[in-house]
Amino acid sequence: MLIVQKYGGTSVGSLERIENVAFRVIKTKELGNSLVVVVSAMSGETNKLIEYAEHFTSTPAKKEMDMLLSSGERVTAALLAIALQAKGVDAVAMTGRQAGIVTDSVHTYARIEEIDPSPMKSAIESGKVVIVAGFQGITKDGSVTTLGRGGSDLSAVAIAGAIGADQCEIYSDVDGVYTTDPRIEPRAKKLDIISYDEMLEMSSLGAKVLQNRSVELAKKLKVKLYAKSSFSDNAGTLIAEESENMESVLVSGVVLDRNQARVTLRGVSDKPGIAAQIFTKLADCLINVDMIIQNSATSDGETILGFTVPQSELQNAKTVMENFDHDIKDMDFDEKICKVSVVGVGMKSHSGIAAKAFSIMAQNGINIQMIATSEIKISMIVNEKYGELAVRTLHEAYELDK
Amino acid sequence: MLIVQKYGGTSVGSLERIENVAFRVIKTKELGNSLVVVVSAMSGETNKLIEYAEHFTSTPAKKEMDMLLSSGERVTAALLAIALQAKGVDAVAMTGRQAGIVTDSVHTYARIEEIDPSPMKSAIESGKVVIVAGFQGITKDGSVTTLGRGGSDLSAVAIAGAIGADQCEIYSDVDGVYTTDPRIEPRAKKLDIISYDEMLEMSSLGAKVLQNRSVELAKKLKVKLYAKSSFSDNAGTLIAEESENMESVLVSGVVLDRNQARVTLRGVSDKPGIAAQIFTKLADCLINVDMIIQNSATSDGETILGFTVPQSELQNAKTVMENFDHDIKDMDFDEKICKVSVVGVGMKSHSGIAAKAFSIMAQNGINIQMIATSEIKISMIVNEKYGELAVRTLHEAYELDK
Repeated sequence: MLIVQKYGGTSVGSLERIENVAFRVIKTKELGNSLVVVVSAMSGETNKLIEYAEHFTSTPAKKEMDMLLSSGERVTAALLAIALQAKGVDAVAMTGRQAGIVTDSVHTYARIEEIDPSPMKSAIESGKVVIVAGFQGITKDGSVTTLGRGGSDLSAVAIAGAIGADQCEIYSDVDGVYTTDPRIEPRAKKLDIISYDEMLEMSSLGAKVLQNRSVELAKKLKVKLYAKSSFSDNAGTLIAEESENMESVLVSGVVLDRNQARVTLRGVSDKPGIAAQIFTKLADCLINVDMIIQNSATSDGETILGFTVPQSELQNAKTVMENFDHDIKDMDFDEKICKVSVVGVGMKSHSGIAAKAFSIMAQNGINIQMIATSEIKISMIVNEKYGELAVRTLHEAYELDK
Repeated sequence: MLIVQKYGGTSVGSLERIENVAFRVIKTKELGNSLVVVVSAMSGETNKLIEYAEHFTSTPAKKEMDMLLSSGERVTAALLAIALQAKGVDAVAMTGRQAGIVTDSVHTYARIEEIDPSPMKSAIESGKVVIVAGFQGITKDGSVTTLGRGGSDLSAVAIAGAIGADQCEIYSDVDGVYTTDPRIEPRAKKLDIISYDEMLEMSSLGAKVLQNRSVELAKKLKVKLYAKSSFSDNAGTLIAEESENMESVLVSGVVLDRNQARVTLRGVSDKPGIAAQIFTKLADCLINVDMIIQNSATSDGETILGFTVPQSELQNAKTVMENFDHDIKDMDFDEKICKVSVVGVGMKSHSGIAAKAFSIMAQNGINIQMIATSEIKISMIVNEKYGELAVRTLHEAYELDK
């Protein structure tokens, strides 16, 4: 098999851990596989470099930041190649540029535009293990770029697509995707398999195993993703296309997101374009809006508009709304809330899953402030003090611990 | 003026020092100059990375070492550009590749083959201060290379030549070239000016201000070099072409090299080719031979061959000589020696300088074991315990403290 493995910051966080990764790579190779290994910076390095830059200014130029930040992954890639060579493995380290990764020129958050797979392919064909510095590429005119937080996952998935790898394994300190956060519900179970869409919902809801951009890209490129731990030999979780088999599982997971704050605007006049103006203003101020709920207008032509924003952006959102030109009768801001979500592709073909969630909440005396649903997700905003209780009872109700 | 400034590891050894460099750059710019600034890695960084690699093997692959080691200068270059931008200066950071530096493919000790000055020139023309990561370049086929220890000086000189700079200023923690090591002779004086050739002799003899490769390159490209301190506003020392004015100074400096060991081969048969065989064998074992002395043969057709090697290589040299095929009657190895040298372009036109040196040594009861001279240098091997005394008395005899 042709395998792409990606090791995150904690997995390469010390020289001993890099050596441990070298042993894993060797084991995979000895099973007859060919490998491209994508690495992050050693944990703490990227933050250290950011702090260095912020010593001088809180708004360093993004082009220079990219030159600064891309150095961490280069160090790890070179060290892993050296560690492998020391064990007799023919390995070669490549920067993003050398691996043929071309991005757009949006510095610090670049998108991969194309990958020329030939340098990696010819190294693989000559029997080498290819080590690639993740998180980086270059623009067509030769500037160094980085792909944003979690960018090494993205590098790995894009490379897997470009070289036609059979699978892409993302290693971290977590051994897969769980039915819920085990710190909240100790009976949480690791999932063997989950669909791309479920994973997208889970990770956008705060399950940190995989970044959404990489899951999206994996879905687009049909790359089979494995989330695995570099500290164990557990099988991990396969993230792949939906299969009929999957739909027999009604619910895959329950996710708690504590980082949301609620904004409720009452008495918004129900005229076309008001909502557009509100969300354009928020977007202009770079405020990320998550859930948006609006019901039909009341008989007096007014409506209630609710939405959530990250807690860190609530103050900005408040300022924006208080300076909004149009009349809004009443505004209510609440950061003492959280979002509980039930995710599962089974919802598509089975009814009653939402009803069950609402009943469970009612049985436990938990008031649901807002509800939003998608094809494979039900999200509920509740008072933050009920967050963990909601997760545990939903987890049990859908028999996720079985 | 168009000025290239190069700041070494100690000069950029902390965020505060990088900020200090930023202020110096601004001062130079405000005087109406255009600038390219070449930076080293923050002090300690390169050694840290070497230690990391040596955790895995004592012989890491040089290609990967170059990828590893080149990261330190990139960090400094990006940080200095960010520091300047924070102070309102339009600055741009470039890697060796982006600055157009193309080298041969001798990894970890590459030679600069050519520099395409256009990226730097167009940035300068648009009013930018250009910050270049020193010590690095890329090969024609895109591999990252480094230029060896002191390589950032070399980057600076080569850039100064390529862009036609008026002068190249090398900043370190020393404020210039001294008549001798001030730790040995406190009355040592800073030289205002010294010729390239004298500087070459001084630095090959152990004066650490500038590396020989960069002085050689400066001489070849006719780049006016200044050795200056980044911690003071002293004028520093100008290293330039010899002028008539310089020759009126008989002696520029006295240098002590403690790192030599002596090998004396007695009863070497005076046949053509024996010396060639000896030094070929030593070269094959990568032993650097410094002084070589051979006198005319004695009446019985035998000769004495003496040479010096770095102390760290004496054991290897011993092994080589003990396994040498031809008869050598007696071998003598001594690491308790040092080399004292008197350097000055004035020697070319003035006689009696060597005689004075030998008298001084005799007056102080110092036995000279070996003598070698060049046009502008007299070197003497003496017992190591006399090294400092020799330096001080010679320094006084040539009135270098005046």
